[in-house]
Amino acid sequence: MEEILTNRYISIKHPINGAPEESDFEIKSESLSPLPADSMKKKKEVIVKNLYVSIDPYQLNRMKSHSPSQSAINFASPVTIGQTIDAYGVGRVIASGNPAFEKGDLVAGLLCWGEYTVVKEGGLLNKLDPMGFPLSYHVGVLAFSGLTAYAGFFEVCKPKKGEKVFVSAASGSVGSLVGQYAKLFGCYVVGSAGTQQKVDLLKGKLGFDDAFNYKEETDLKAALKRYFPEGIDIYFDNVGGEMQEAAVANMNTFGRVAVCGVISEYTKKNKPSAPDMLDIVYKRITFQGFLAADYMKIYNNFISKTVEYLRDGKIQALEDILYGLETIPSAFLGLFLGGNVGKKMVKIAEDE
Amino acid sequence: MEEILTNRYISIKHPINGAPEESDFEIKSESLSPLPADSMKKKKEVIVKNLYVSIDPYQLNRMKSHSPSQSAINFASPVTIGQTIDAYGVGRVIASGNPAFEKGDLVAGLLCWGEYTVVKEGGLLNKLDPMGFPLSYHVGVLAFSGLTAYAGFFEVCKPKKGEKVFVSAASGSVGSLVGQYAKLFGCYVVGSAGTQQKVDLLKGKLGFDDAFNYKEETDLKAALKRYFPEGIDIYFDNVGGEMQEAAVANMNTFGRVAVCGVISEYTKKNKPSAPDMLDIVYKRITFQGFLAADYMKIYNNFISKTVEYLRDGKIQALEDILYGLETIPSAFLGLFLGGNVGKKMVKIAEDE
Repeated sequence: MEEILTNRYISIKHPINGAPEESDFEIKSESLSPLPADSMKKKKEVIVKNLYVSIDPYQLNRMKSHSPSQSAINFASPVTIGQTIDAYGVGRVIASGNPAFEKGDLVAGLLCWGEYTVVKEGGLLNKLDPMGFPLSYHVGVLAFSGLTAYAGFFEVCKPKKGEKVFVSAASGSVGSLVGQYAKLFGCYVVGSAGTQQKVDLLKGKLGFDDAFNYKEETDLKAALKRYFPEGIDIYFDNVGGEMQEAAVANMNTFGRVAVCGVISEYTKKNKPSAPDMLDIVYKRITFQGFLAADYMKIYNNFISKTVEYLRDGKIQALEDILYGLETIPSAFLGLFLGGNVGKKMVKIAEDE
Repeated sequence: MEEILTNRYISIKHPINGAPEESDFEIKSESLSPLPADSMKKKKEVIVKNLYVSIDPYQLNRMKSHSPSQSAINFASPVTIGQTIDAYGVGRVIASGNPAFEKGDLVAGLLCWGEYTVVKEGGLLNKLDPMGFPLSYHVGVLAFSGLTAYAGFFEVCKPKKGEKVFVSAASGSVGSLVGQYAKLFGCYVVGSAGTQQKVDLLKGKLGFDDAFNYKEETDLKAALKRYFPEGIDIYFDNVGGEMQEAAVANMNTFGRVAVCGVISEYTKKNKPSAPDMLDIVYKRITFQGFLAADYMKIYNNFISKTVEYLRDGKIQALEDILYGLETIPSAFLGLFLGGNVGKKMVKIAEDE
């Protein structure tokens, strides 16, 4: 690669401490230096043309002035003002100084919200075999969303057949898969979502036993009591807040709460959850926060099972794809407005 | 037993929904019917003269108008106005219609806050071998307080040598033992308590690595940061509320919180804990409520280890004993005022 490339990318103008707005973001551009092949080899850099990039709620926590999560783990490190924002995605190698990759390779890994990504040595990048699936599947159902659902449900929730499972944000990228894995496993599954359309989707296409629109419920505890007259054994929590409190109140003894995300609390608009600790003690409830990255040991198992389910039509991959770099800010904002159905991502470029 | 016995016992006059007061209780008396031996045998009842009875914070939850815990499990069933209040204790059998017991047997089990207990068939009652220890040890360190500490620490917290352990209410019946087990196991242990005297006891007699008076701290998060510059791996929670929030904020990745009790929340005077769910997710914290009764499978192991530690002087059994049935209400009230050091119990009668 000797020609000069212009890379346009999304960045934040300042820390974002509440709900994100379009004006918090800007499109910047940089010239990717046309390094001589020798220099690229020395640094073992790979330049990837981004095709699909993932849009995830957790990114908001990286954009805050201070978030406890920022110090906890490296891949949630703060986003720097004016710089690229890394994000999982799929792309094509257009130049490589790393012997593990060559021009034309299809890859998946930590790219960025931009047109190109310079992946440094040691960065998360793997050659991708699409296995006959659309490339977008390798950003969602066959990537971290899927692993989060699979590991969270099987490893964290430790389900038994016949148990009663509640999933919030059930039409989201992770929730929609949790519900489907739980049904295939033999659980009774109810999901909550924020529109009637989503509720219909859960009950129809995704085969949930039941579903409800939480926005139409004035008393979430009473609602869950209605949907779970025999109590909840497993709560897969994507939202936190009042819904979490209501789920704990309706939980059975030895119930498990997998805390995957607390999107209702990210923007700090809602009261944080204060689950009744007496319930937690007396009902011996386990509450566990987790991240998919801790479950790479079951990655192969997750992929082989999920590929099989997808091929047999037993799992539906819901996707919500926007087109073009410019749509990233609004795609991201939409996550906090409940607009998406399934895995949100942006297609940056055609794979030519 | 053909003579008529008068049994004096403590009961509640009405549900207690806040901090308990002396006036919530009264001493009542009943005549224990002088059943003919045949009738006692038919019902397999045992009459026990109570010697020591346990005074525990959880009893307050049984006295509320409604508590979620009441419906969750049978041994936390509501206390009935005017009736006896069951409680763990040690006593002597004075009459038995159950072939498993005979007059004169020393027993431990579910007795009551009274002078005598009529234990029905199926009631929790076992013959007691004091093994050379004071009878009071069989109400505290060698009974449920001990099992709660042992099971909570080893089974729920799953410690590793060298881990940093924080214990709240550390001079209480359970906390004082958790800290000592943790030290013997090879952990770094800091406790919190509510007086300087208790702090001195923890650091001196009980061998905690450090201890502090939470009442002298204006910022609990900052205090824990000072005592745990490298973070907390295990929090054994006896109090809930603000301390729990502060502990979660100072927790390391893969930290564990064993929720044993939330005494600061029982009286509803304090704000319930709303631990930061972002911390819980990103630091992959596990929060687990538990009850000792679920760990009877490790009872023998608990007893043999603890007996060995006591005989070798490696564990100190802290006890706070009041004398006479009349002292039960004030003994109970004291639990919520932070007055006790170690296991609170009332000696009802001499063992003659």
